[in-house]
Amino acid sequence: MRGSNMTSHVDGPLTPAELNGIDAWWRAANYLSVGQIYLLANPLLHDPLRAEHIKPRLLGHWGTTPGLNFIYAHLNRAIIQRDLNMIYVMGPGHGGPGPVAASWLEGTYSETYPEVSQDIDGMEKLFQQFSFPGGIPSHVAPETPGSIHEGGELGYALSHAYGAAFDNPDLIVTAVVGDGEAETGALATSWHSNKFLNPTTDGAVLPILHLNGYKIANPTILARIDRDELDALLRGYGHTPYYVEGQDPDQMHQDFARTLDTCLEEIHQLQHRAREHGETTRPRWPMIVLRSPKGWTGPTEVDGHQVEGSWRSHQVPFSAARENKDHRKILENWLRSYRPEELFTATGAPVKELRRLRPEGTQRMSANPHANGGSLLRDLQMPNFRDYAVSVERPGTGQIEATRVLGQLLRDVVAANMQTFRVFSPDENNSNRLNAILEATDRMWNAQTLPEDDHLARDGRVMEILSEHTCQGWLEGYLLTGRHGFFSCYEAFIHIVDSMFNQHAKWLDTTNDISWRQPIASLNYLLTSHVWRQDHNGFSHQDPGFIDHVLNKKPEVVRVYLPPDANTLLSVADHCLRSRQYVNVIVAGKQPQLQYLTMNEAIVHCAEGIGTWDWASTHPDTEPDVVMACAGDVPTMETLAAVDLLRSNFPDLAIRVINVVDLLRLQHDSVGPHGLPDTDFDALFTTDKPVIFAYHGYPWLIHRLTYRRTNHGNFHVHGYQEEGTTTTPFDMCVLNRLDRFHLAIAVIDRVSRLKNVSSGARETFQNALIQHHQYIRVHGEDMPEIKNWQWPAAPNSSASSE
Amino acid sequence: MRGSNMTSHVDGPLTPAELNGIDAWWRAANYLSVGQIYLLANPLLHDPLRAEHIKPRLLGHWGTTPGLNFIYAHLNRAIIQRDLNMIYVMGPGHGGPGPVAASWLEGTYSETYPEVSQDIDGMEKLFQQFSFPGGIPSHVAPETPGSIHEGGELGYALSHAYGAAFDNPDLIVTAVVGDGEAETGALATSWHSNKFLNPTTDGAVLPILHLNGYKIANPTILARIDRDELDALLRGYGHTPYYVEGQDPDQMHQDFARTLDTCLEEIHQLQHRAREHGETTRPRWPMIVLRSPKGWTGPTEVDGHQVEGSWRSHQVPFSAARENKDHRKILENWLRSYRPEELFTATGAPVKELRRLRPEGTQRMSANPHANGGSLLRDLQMPNFRDYAVSVERPGTGQIEATRVLGQLLRDVVAANMQTFRVFSPDENNSNRLNAILEATDRMWNAQTLPEDDHLARDGRVMEILSEHTCQGWLEGYLLTGRHGFFSCYEAFIHIVDSMFNQHAKWLDTTNDISWRQPIASLNYLLTSHVWRQDHNGFSHQDPGFIDHVLNKKPEVVRVYLPPDANTLLSVADHCLRSRQYVNVIVAGKQPQLQYLTMNEAIVHCAEGIGTWDWASTHPDTEPDVVMACAGDVPTMETLAAVDLLRSNFPDLAIRVINVVDLLRLQHDSVGPHGLPDTDFDALFTTDKPVIFAYHGYPWLIHRLTYRRTNHGNFHVHGYQEEGTTTTPFDMCVLNRLDRFHLAIAVIDRVSRLKNVSSGARETFQNALIQHHQYIRVHGEDMPEIKNWQWPAAPNSSASSE
Repeated sequence: MRGSNMTSHVDGPLTPAELNGIDAWWRAANYLSVGQIYLLANPLLHDPLRAEHIKPRLLGHWGTTPGLNFIYAHLNRAIIQRDLNMIYVMGPGHGGPGPVAASWLEGTYSETYPEVSQDIDGMEKLFQQFSFPGGIPSHVAPETPGSIHEGGELGYALSHAYGAAFDNPDLIVTAVVGDGEAETGALATSWHSNKFLNPTTDGAVLPILHLNGYKIANPTILARIDRDELDALLRGYGHTPYYVEGQDPDQMHQDFARTLDTCLEEIHQLQHRAREHGETTRPRWPMIVLRSPKGWTGPTEVDGHQVEGSWRSHQVPFSAARENKDHRKILENWLRSYRPEELFTATGAPVKELRRLRPEGTQRMSANPHANGGSLLRDLQMPNFRDYAVSVERPGTGQIEATRVLGQLLRDVVAANMQTFRVFSPDENNSNRLNAILEATDRMWNAQTLPEDDHLARDGRVMEILSEHTCQGWLEGYLLTGRHGFFSCYEAFIHIVDSMFNQHAKWLDTTNDISWRQPIASLNYLLTSHVWRQDHNGFSHQDPGFIDHVLNKKPEVVRVYLPPDANTLLSVADHCLRSRQYVNVIVAGKQPQLQYLTMNEAIVHCAEGIGTWDWASTHPDTEPDVVMACAGDVPTMETLAAVDLLRSNFPDLAIRVINVVDLLRLQHDSVGPHGLPDTDFDALFTTDKPVIFAYHGYPWLIHRLTYRRTNHGNFHVHGYQEEGTTTTPFDMCVLNRLDRFHLAIAVIDRVSRLKNVSSGARETFQNALIQHHQYIRVHGEDMPEIKNWQWPAAPNSSASSE
Repeated sequence: MRGSNMTSHVDGPLTPAELNGIDAWWRAANYLSVGQIYLLANPLLHDPLRAEHIKPRLLGHWGTTPGLNFIYAHLNRAIIQRDLNMIYVMGPGHGGPGPVAASWLEGTYSETYPEVSQDIDGMEKLFQQFSFPGGIPSHVAPETPGSIHEGGELGYALSHAYGAAFDNPDLIVTAVVGDGEAETGALATSWHSNKFLNPTTDGAVLPILHLNGYKIANPTILARIDRDELDALLRGYGHTPYYVEGQDPDQMHQDFARTLDTCLEEIHQLQHRAREHGETTRPRWPMIVLRSPKGWTGPTEVDGHQVEGSWRSHQVPFSAARENKDHRKILENWLRSYRPEELFTATGAPVKELRRLRPEGTQRMSANPHANGGSLLRDLQMPNFRDYAVSVERPGTGQIEATRVLGQLLRDVVAANMQTFRVFSPDENNSNRLNAILEATDRMWNAQTLPEDDHLARDGRVMEILSEHTCQGWLEGYLLTGRHGFFSCYEAFIHIVDSMFNQHAKWLDTTNDISWRQPIASLNYLLTSHVWRQDHNGFSHQDPGFIDHVLNKKPEVVRVYLPPDANTLLSVADHCLRSRQYVNVIVAGKQPQLQYLTMNEAIVHCAEGIGTWDWASTHPDTEPDVVMACAGDVPTMETLAAVDLLRSNFPDLAIRVINVVDLLRLQHDSVGPHGLPDTDFDALFTTDKPVIFAYHGYPWLIHRLTYRRTNHGNFHVHGYQEEGTTTTPFDMCVLNRLDRFHLAIAVIDRVSRLKNVSSGARETFQNALIQHHQYIRVHGEDMPEIKNWQWPAAPNSSASSE
């Protein structure tokens, strides 16, 4: 007997009718969940269960599902009774059948996918398609109405929930945290998100820690520590925990309903005190601990082993239902224990009683527009980025911190979009020179403050916590619910969220093929404090490989930009902030740097993404002897310096300088939408001349992008070769052979007509390297002529900045 | 006046002489730390401070350093008084000057680096080299005696500390957790490591949460929540916290000494109860919360801004000391406030009083052999891996789960090395089919247990927590202190520790150049539940990109192996477990798979790392028409199936089959030590024939490794193209064009002499694809002829398994 037996009389807030309704919903959702995992046909068991009714491959996760369904039923009662605006983030997203069942019961599923109708045919399709080729994935997925959270990789439920709640004062985000997930690093620190929530202008997050007891094969830590220890932990996280523990459905329904009422009332009161009475104490938000058996209502025992309440319920509790008659009988009894005849009409529609537990329209969690954020998305109010332009009287002059200039643009983006744009950073906003943002807003902070603190406020729009995971999760949640954001991070440490990026890129990739999912704003990264200028730190802070990682994802969802100076950075940032459905990676240095392009030139250059810099080339009107390409601010400077060296030594040498801003322009146009056709590529890089390519990151990435190009055999890429330490900026270049002298020598070595005339120059350049090396090791800084190097005034006949 | 003033009389355990000694040590360490950050010359201030005494580039982190020094001084007293074996893990490893100063005071530095002697010349060198080109990094680094922990990237202090403590019953690992670091995900979950520590057979970890108050620019969360909330959090983590808070040195010395005594006594008692009285309750281990000002003892104010006790102390508190006379005066006063004349003799040696606080020999934390783990490392007792061989009567038969076979080897490695080998997994040991290990040992678990639990014990050697970060951190700590280990993980989710891998690989790379660092055991990953067989999950679990990430690090420290079957996996695993100073990545499936090589063949093949499989080739004695290369178990199977298809259709076609186990064999020998010379590579892959390469991961990696090879223009790589969902194994191959039919079609399209004769076969293969597609979508499983496909009995004249 599964579910409420209707004969017990447990005290509680639910009337018998309410209890019956909730329990019926729960049984219906559980029935539909088991059906999805096991059945191919005979969805309502109108016939005795036969082998051919059962899927040949049983794939999915039962263990967490009944708990997710139990909560869903109760949330629905609360939504209706309290007229709530709520979405539901399921950390244990492996329990994919649960929310699919719920949205089918709510009607949303059939509205979204009409072929999966609310009848027996539709139910059969619902069952068939689950974890089935050509069907839907086994997890909560982009395909699932009402979801902003995949849950395949664990750890991000709470940070997603907070991201969704920010700037949505009327929204309550219920977030189930699995006790397995709770062991992950990302989840463990995300509890502290409550110090970054403004009770007045943000919504609320209601965490439900689901103590299911087991992971795949092990018990969970939080289910196996003393109650007082668990209670202390959750209070230490800043919450007031309430406990619902047991397995008797009647008792659990009453307990959960009472507890949920308590929590929602408390949330209401806390918000009321903040909003109406200006209460500024950080609230101790309520949360629920739900301790229930893993695989609750599933078979108690199979083949002599405990299943319900054990790790054996994690995936498919028993897998021989097709071949083994006894297992099949267990399955049939299990399904029938939910009394489907009470839940569905003869034609397979949910009975009327179930529909009473269904909120209307967009109040259904499966139809809440916040969970299809693109439908709420509005364009950012963008200031004109041209207004922030840096004056560049002639190329290769100035000492500008590009990210500091960007900070001014971002400041005004924040100011113009006070409810829909936030910036995120792991305590690096100012280190990354985005200080100007703090002229328009503050850092969000809802813990204690002291007089010496800098720009902390309860309504700040700068989100800083020393957790890349939490920044990323907040931002994802914010974007997925239809807002905009910007994440600045040290280049090396963005690898901390490699895996989160993967999941978000996969989400975007999948939603590109889901017509009802409206496009969301792009996830914009600024990677700065980059490999070439990690002056205070060193080797541990030097890794430009996030670009490589990103480019393993589909070219339809990723973009990488390497603006060489401030004006190009402004142009790129403007483009990224307006874009949709991408992950944009912008790499730009924060140190004073030469500037090259006026704003007009920058706009043209960035629109092309790649281009010849005639003013920097020598003899630009002739066929070049060599192409010197560059991508990234430091490589650009070193390339120009190398051109300068070569020009003085070989006045006849024709050097074509190419600068790459949009890295994917290098790719073939058949591979990705930004790729150049071969004709254009060949026109730029020639088909037979040596190409000395100075690249910001690991050099092989350029080869990977260009290996099919006609002239690839002549590409010689200089980049980061994993040589690093705490040293001077120029020495970093030398260690990795990216410096001007190595580049110039590479030209000499590759241009055949220089071979006979160049030994003097080659020696000069090599001696210069030695000289610099010695100077740096004695003086501890770069030689002045390197530090203050600028592009010569009128380097050749074609030099002109406009 | 900095440090103890000797006139106050604060009650406490320290006698005036002890207090004086500790304070003197602390002042000396602080003096040497400031000297490292600022001074080029005049180390003892025998002259008034002049501009040229000051470094031109001031780089480093002062803020955390005095706290680290304070703790060091107190730990030394305890080591001497209690005869302890202790190492010190500094989470805030940015404070590099601290441990360098301490090891110089202890004499270890001069023993390790004789040129940095304990005199005025040595002190000058000590100062000069810090954060200086050609000198030492600004963080605690491999170069620092006594360190196993870089601390540049934050988050791993506690997991490293626990890894060091495992199986070292006499060791106490003091681990300082910075309050910034405490916000990271990895750190936040690693507190739960105490549920995995055996008080009888493991050592102890003494965490010190250092509430410095500020990060780079923001306050820290844990310093800004109420004391009762913090206390609850730490008790919730399973600790008994003790607090030392303040800034008056005398008071703080007495308080810290008393608290440290309490903690060490408690550790002693807890261990005694477990070891002598068999007490099995999980101890609530003591820990210390040290709340002290950031930049403690630094300048109170500079240019009207608070410095000590504020975020402005984070790096260099003021940076114009060379140019600005006032700043220089502040610096000089600051340095003199430590009263160097009391601390160092006129010739620059530490005064005798300081030497009293110096433990002897290897009891010095800077000389403790556990912090130079290679010096303690002993070879594993290895069973003969040949004894686990799978019988392969002929190639391409059988259905063996390779990782299950590996589990048997690992079981016996565990059994034979019960104190020096552990296996680590994020709750996936059995999911990854390494079940056999549990025949020899259990899962380590020191929280509550229930009867249905499976193989949990307080002395288990299988370390399972659902945190890849914690697994990785434990394993690193275990390896760095001279033991061996093995980490099995779902392939996709190993990206969670991308950044931790980076740091460990950098550590190995750096230590390769440090002669006194003895080689440590390699970090061995088994990546399984891989992209091609994530049957229960789907797209979120499909990412083979860790290989790409790993290969961005130096070829001297990374290895990637793709054994195609069980015997090759055994051979590879044996090799990896015996190796030193590498990160070894082994990718192998857990699903039933065909077997190809007998053990003898496997040994030969793995020793070469790459080779022609004549038995699978057609007309192996002639020049091939096409090379079909494969790397990985699924690609190998599909390649052989394609050969089979092609052979029946084109009996005259000469196909050479090459299998790659050691991926870096593809690299040029000038790039990495495992790379093949061009002659060997050309002999295998020809210089002009088409190469159809079926690869486990993202296809461009093969291009990256081979782009300089003669025949690269003819390489056509099939691999994972980021197409995935929950579907059948064969459908996954089809989606990514890695299946036999696509491979066969690729051959047809690339071998010119087939162009005229092949249209029928091509059409047949394409029709087969359609047929399979339809079958799979109807039946939900692969067609039997695909599922049960085996290599034909005697495919051609040369087929033979020996």
